[in-house]
Amino acid sequence: MEMMKAAVMTEVKKIEMQQREKPQPKADEVQVKVEYVGVCGSDVHYFEFGRVGNFVVEKPIVLGHECGGTITAVGSDVKKLKVGDHVALEPGVPCGKCEFCLSGRYNLCPDVRFMATPPYDGAFQEYVVHPEALSFKLPDNMSTMAGALIEPLSVGFHAAKQSGAAVGQSAVVLGAGCIGLVTMMALRSMGVKKVIVVDLLPKRLEKAKELGAAAVVNSGETDAVKAVMDLTDGAGADLVFETAGSPVTSMMTSYLVKRGGTITLVGMTPKPEFNYNFGNIMDKEATIKSVFRYCNLYPTAINAVASGDIPIEKIVSDTFSFDEVQKAMQYNIDNKADVTKIVLDFTK
Amino acid sequence: MEMMKAAVMTEVKKIEMQQREKPQPKADEVQVKVEYVGVCGSDVHYFEFGRVGNFVVEKPIVLGHECGGTITAVGSDVKKLKVGDHVALEPGVPCGKCEFCLSGRYNLCPDVRFMATPPYDGAFQEYVVHPEALSFKLPDNMSTMAGALIEPLSVGFHAAKQSGAAVGQSAVVLGAGCIGLVTMMALRSMGVKKVIVVDLLPKRLEKAKELGAAAVVNSGETDAVKAVMDLTDGAGADLVFETAGSPVTSMMTSYLVKRGGTITLVGMTPKPEFNYNFGNIMDKEATIKSVFRYCNLYPTAINAVASGDIPIEKIVSDTFSFDEVQKAMQYNIDNKADVTKIVLDFTK
Amino acid sequence: MEMMKAAVMTEVKKIEMQQREKPQPKADEVQVKVEYVGVCGSDVHYFEFGRVGNFVVEKPIVLGHECGGTITAVGSDVKKLKVGDHVALEPGVPCGKCEFCLSGRYNLCPDVRFMATPPYDGAFQEYVVHPEALSFKLPDNMSTMAGALIEPLSVGFHAAKQSGAAVGQSAVVLGAGCIGLVTMMALRSMGVKKVIVVDLLPKRLEKAKELGAAAVVNSGETDAVKAVMDLTDGAGADLVFETAGSPVTSMMTSYLVKRGGTITLVGMTPKPEFNYNFGNIMDKEATIKSVFRYCNLYPTAINAVASGDIPIEKIVSDTFSFDEVQKAMQYNIDNKADVTKIVLDFTK
Amino acid sequence: MEMMKAAVMTEVKKIEMQQREKPQPKADEVQVKVEYVGVCGSDVHYFEFGRVGNFVVEKPIVLGHECGGTITAVGSDVKKLKVGDHVALEPGVPCGKCEFCLSGRYNLCPDVRFMATPPYDGAFQEYVVHPEALSFKLPDNMSTMAGALIEPLSVGFHAAKQSGAAVGQSAVVLGAGCIGLVTMMALRSMGVKKVIVVDLLPKRLEKAKELGAAAVVNSGETDAVKAVMDLTDGAGADLVFETAGSPVTSMMTSYLVKRGGTITLVGMTPKPEFNYNFGNIMDKEATIKSVFRYCNLYPTAINAVASGDIPIEKIVSDTFSFDEVQKAMQYNIDNKADVTKIVLDFTK
Repeated sequence: MEMMKAAVMTEVKKIEMQQREKPQPKADEVQVKVEYVGVCGSDVHYFEFGRVGNFVVEKPIVLGHECGGTITAVGSDVKKLKVGDHVALEPGVPCGKCEFCLSGRYNLCPDVRFMATPPYDGAFQEYVVHPEALSFKLPDNMSTMAGALIEPLSVGFHAAKQSGAAVGQSAVVLGAGCIGLVTMMALRSMGVKKVIVVDLLPKRLEKAKELGAAAVVNSGETDAVKAVMDLTDGAGADLVFETAGSPVTSMMTSYLVKRGGTITLVGMTPKPEFNYNFGNIMDKEATIKSVFRYCNLYPTAINAVASGDIPIEKIVSDTFSFDEVQKAMQYNIDNKADVTKIVLDFTK
Repeated sequence: MEMMKAAVMTEVKKIEMQQREKPQPKADEVQVKVEYVGVCGSDVHYFEFGRVGNFVVEKPIVLGHECGGTITAVGSDVKKLKVGDHVALEPGVPCGKCEFCLSGRYNLCPDVRFMATPPYDGAFQEYVVHPEALSFKLPDNMSTMAGALIEPLSVGFHAAKQSGAAVGQSAVVLGAGCIGLVTMMALRSMGVKKVIVVDLLPKRLEKAKELGAAAVVNSGETDAVKAVMDLTDGAGADLVFETAGSPVTSMMTSYLVKRGGTITLVGMTPKPEFNYNFGNIMDKEATIKSVFRYCNLYPTAINAVASGDIPIEKIVSDTFSFDEVQKAMQYNIDNKADVTKIVLDFTK
Repeated sequence: MEMMKAAVMTEVKKIEMQQREKPQPKADEVQVKVEYVGVCGSDVHYFEFGRVGNFVVEKPIVLGHECGGTITAVGSDVKKLKVGDHVALEPGVPCGKCEFCLSGRYNLCPDVRFMATPPYDGAFQEYVVHPEALSFKLPDNMSTMAGALIEPLSVGFHAAKQSGAAVGQSAVVLGAGCIGLVTMMALRSMGVKKVIVVDLLPKRLEKAKELGAAAVVNSGETDAVKAVMDLTDGAGADLVFETAGSPVTSMMTSYLVKRGGTITLVGMTPKPEFNYNFGNIMDKEATIKSVFRYCNLYPTAINAVASGDIPIEKIVSDTFSFDEVQKAMQYNIDNKADVTKIVLDFTK
Repeated sequence: MEMMKAAVMTEVKKIEMQQREKPQPKADEVQVKVEYVGVCGSDVHYFEFGRVGNFVVEKPIVLGHECGGTITAVGSDVKKLKVGDHVALEPGVPCGKCEFCLSGRYNLCPDVRFMATPPYDGAFQEYVVHPEALSFKLPDNMSTMAGALIEPLSVGFHAAKQSGAAVGQSAVVLGAGCIGLVTMMALRSMGVKKVIVVDLLPKRLEKAKELGAAAVVNSGETDAVKAVMDLTDGAGADLVFETAGSPVTSMMTSYLVKRGGTITLVGMTPKPEFNYNFGNIMDKEATIKSVFRYCNLYPTAINAVASGDIPIEKIVSDTFSFDEVQKAMQYNIDNKADVTKIVLDFTK
């Protein structure tokens, strides 16, 4: 029996390396040597608190769901992929049978098995097996680190798609963390070039500028609503994205959106309920969309990176080796303001 | 100079009959002898309080904007309509030049001149002139009373359209007043046959039943959320419409909507801001749409009535003669629970 | 080993009854006692010619794919259905893994296994097994004969959906055979009440009238284009559906469609190539859509029948017992003009 | 009375300079000093043959409808624009009242007054007056030559929009003339980076490469269908655009499009009718869209140029001074293969 190393979270704030049996692919699966895994806010939250919303870690779990690697074995029914291919893994495996799966909104599948969401293990381990259908080959000019980052980028594309973004529109992105940045990059690649990014942290706003923001607003220093109005001839923005997960920015959205425009909620607020001005929404006949993961977007995100349109690796602020996983998690907790995205590098 | 009778609101709760000059059509206008005018909640609100939201009655105004009648004269450029035609008048005249008008969402035109919205006079007068383009000929089998009711029915169709309603879906309509009923009728005509109507008043629920509700729920007697869940196999409804304008029902919407479904806000709450559970919205990736008047729907609404699909006249609970306008307004105030729709009959 | 009777097409124009092993459901399948199976034009075509397009009957095959029945056994993973449930079976089982399946257009799945399409057997047999996910429970007020007819009705709904049909629009349906009629019925249930039906056979046009056509045009007696123009104030129809599969009617479509309207091709012409006036299409900025089977529409079609909106059983012109299958096929060939839909009744 | 110079086409192949009264703006119009006018294929066609389709030049006409310039006077109701502003003029003035105008598809307005389409004069004159609503201010970083080219670019955007182009899709553009190039540029700005361009002329293909084509195919040298299949893993392209206006390329489209994909017809073929393989369309459930001018896209096109995303001036192959207009037209006729876009420069 072949063994491999897995980083298992055994209790809150404790991840230990264990030897586990190396998983073997079923007929329609591929076996992947993991090379890069991004650390998501939810991984950190599980690590720090043992739960995310209603999902509770009740037994040891392997975290990590943003994963790129190389195929090392394929099941008997695998047709398109082969050993040696570089792949990005879409971490949610839907049931394929419910009304949501059949109609193409498989992100809403109630029976999805999602990596690193209890009770399912994730990718902080040397090898994973995954359905071929959800393993996407990377073109030669793309690294497996970029492959790992296709996951958050897919959230950005899903947010942009949910908003109905159309070329030539204007947008405001509230929050310049990882999700704010990937949303901005997705919007830009769809022709929404006028993206105004709002955050409290100068460092994040600099990064937003570097990655293409048309303007940035420091909401700690100026009145963000006024600033956006000034930047949009008093009309507000066609599209407003809330990625900060704060009630304050969430409440701002109805003031920032243009008549007839669309607000898209991407960030989860700590409390599900808060006060909101729906009168503004109705006066403007605005729309509020929301985002739950993503679907059918890995090929799009890969295409956007491969074409050179989106320099996704630039969102990485820190890398750690696989063996440093415990340290990486703690670093993320201790440096929230500075971290955009940590990536675990298994190749070191 | 020809004169006519006009019902002028000279101060709060006071409408008096005055003689005014009979208006003559401009080149692209028709002159219409008014036959029926529906009384809208906004008319009653102006009458009772002298304002609706930011719109304040600052000088004498003629109320009424739900109008059907017969053409008595036409301007020199009028091509399709002729004297004797029965018409329904779409009361908002947009500017035709702004981005909203050019792109077909003319209900969002900031410069619209809307009947009975200060400072513009409405249709509580014997004759009105109106652009030919917004005067819609009624087929022979349709009364001008039905013509007057095309206005609220257009709100129902706009709500249904905004929601993206598709044949076979399920819906909940919160509120069984005039707008709740027209929303239900519009939905039914689009193939949404499973419409659950929720209200507090048994009489309204009976009317909803009579007009085709698949089920009714008295939210004063039972837990409306539980009742809707029971009626939808625990899934919630694809579409939820808030027409009651109450924070209580508004807050219910996030619980009633199905995963991936759409909430549409139609009723204006007294206060623009209230507490709302956005966590539910995000967990379900639900959408919130809103409704501001309507556009491009008079032909649709007329078609639905003329085809026999929508018995719109059944929403009328009371009729008064034109001379009884003051009495009609007061009756509406005094009998809010019983009134679905008052119509002024100018032919009596 | 339990046996059952199956009607096997052993050669062109020859179907014989054979004893076959009664199929047992896999974990996610149900076993269904077949009660009604509609005869499709493709069944008749396979019977008469041994092929349909590129699909060739190369070994004995069981025809029939429009199937309603009662569940007699369920696999171990079946959750929602139970023995005794009446069901309609959606006959195409897609792969669930390709881009078309994942994005909800599973009718385009290149690896679909479709009943009665070589090499897959169909439903002219006493029992079939089928995935639970594609077996749809019928409400109590619906017969399993209606259940069998959900299949062609789904084609009608798919055609209507592909066209983008919206309440209040006008439509022309070319051809009043089974597919023309179900298209008309689907349109009507979506609020497209003005449907003009064109055919050469008076009997079919009578049926169309009975089922709700707003007007019928006998294209053998009058100029169909002129007749439609007269019925649409010279504008043409918003929606044009070609269901006759004839180059003559296909070529008519560009003349019948209104400026900005949509043509939907439903019927397959004998030859794939024909002359077409694209100049008309471009002058009007018209759209041409096409139809390949259907997807995600069984619930919609069942809902429309169950609500009483569509009397689908009225499209049945003839019924035969299961034992008369050979006779039924031949009858269909010999009476093409008179047959709208033959149903095999297994309960007799 | 102020006079100005106008280039009047007095007969086929003859344009002469005349003195005409300088037009004065009505209340809602601006007066524009013309600086650049692009020469469109239709201008050349009118010049060479005296007609385009059903539009016949019956009296002297001023050609030219791709126009950029500077405002020199404004009417009394003009609000947003002022003297000195640089503008691009959208040349079609719709009626604003018909169903197409009201619903936002004003390009289909049957009563549109379109510059340089008989009997309306165009922009080959020193000054024109135009509605403010259709005069679009250029940002400071954009030249009035780019402004003139917004017109063809809007055709490209309309083609891309009509096709439903989505980020990450693949496209084939047949024809690398002006319209092929602007279509490709519009697609690229919307995130469709994989655009394969097909033409017969090496020079045009080089230009396509320079402007961003992912691949080019010389259909005179290789089998274009085979080449596209090779470039798309045998699947065909999501989007196919016919801009060459040739029956040969038009017929190719059904072979090039992917299953479920969309063909968009942009180029007018000399004869409106030709043979087409609709069997391919139906097997793939493909869609055929068409393009008639454009609507609501000037702001989008200006935005795309101003953001640096589209270097529109690079489509210009030749410039002539205003006085050389007769020569420019003849040059275009004599050098069709080499000309991408001629611009008349009024500032020289």
